[in-house]
Amino acid sequence: MTAYDDQNVFAKVLRGEIPCFEVFRDERSLAFLDIMPRSPGHALVIPRAPARGILDITDDDLAAVIRTARRIAVAAMKAFDAEGIILQQFSEPASGQVVFHLHMHVMPVRAGVELLPAQTRKEDMAVLADHAKRLIAALAS
Amino acid sequence: MTAYDDQNVFAKVLRGEIPCFEVFRDERSLAFLDIMPRSPGHALVIPRAPARGILDITDDDLAAVIRTARRIAVAAMKAFDAEGIILQQFSEPASGQVVFHLHMHVMPVRAGVELLPAQTRKEDMAVLADHAKRLIAALAS
Repeated sequence: MTAYDDQNVFAKVLRGEIPCFEVFRDERSLAFLDIMPRSPGHALVIPRAPARGILDITDDDLAAVIRTARRIAVAAMKAFDAEGIILQQFSEPASGQVVFHLHMHVMPVRAGVELLPAQTRKEDMAVLADHAKRLIAALAS
Repeated sequence: MTAYDDQNVFAKVLRGEIPCFEVFRDERSLAFLDIMPRSPGHALVIPRAPARGILDITDDDLAAVIRTARRIAVAAMKAFDAEGIILQQFSEPASGQVVFHLHMHVMPVRAGVELLPAQTRKEDMAVLADHAKRLIAALAS
């Protein structure tokens, strides 16, 4: 497998070189909004330690990522009046992975509303700011 | 959220009332092949404790599920000469969840080969038996 490249976009987010709509962080994980959401409230959870994907992450970092994903999922149900949650994680180019720092997608969904295709439409910054605010409020409640 | 219903298919698998192509189990999790695989080697990882989805599973059970999913992913790369892994988990009917016991899909993929549509084609039992054997061997190596 290819080695971890610390010039990927999420490594830059972790170093604060690129901004993000952060909604949660703990010792091992960070959650922020996807700027090309496939559904309203679509968030990403990443390990703070370097890991390219499911094949090289440590068990402890992976447990932290999924624990945070669960917290985000529960909060997103309230924040976005959702009716279900889809989790997705892609490892390696053949899977469709584009950014090579492990990320777990957490997508709130509603019945009858299809996910938008991946990587198509960049959401308005004001909408993302509002969604981040709603998710942070739901996480705190 | 709807309460857990212990008459779901995976609860029956856990009780041994329905057979499965088991590939791995530990104290908290069980992994077996999806009988309608979307790619060769498509496996499911479930908690042995009752949990409907991401919204009601405990952190410990969820950590066990994702740890097992990672083990399966690493082994599947070898067993099926895969080039990547897709993880998916659906919670609640709006997401497409059909069996209401939490299950994490682990799908080995190859570049340029699309996943089959979900829930379409039941694989031959002999093929599944062979795939289980290959995955078990890779897990042991």
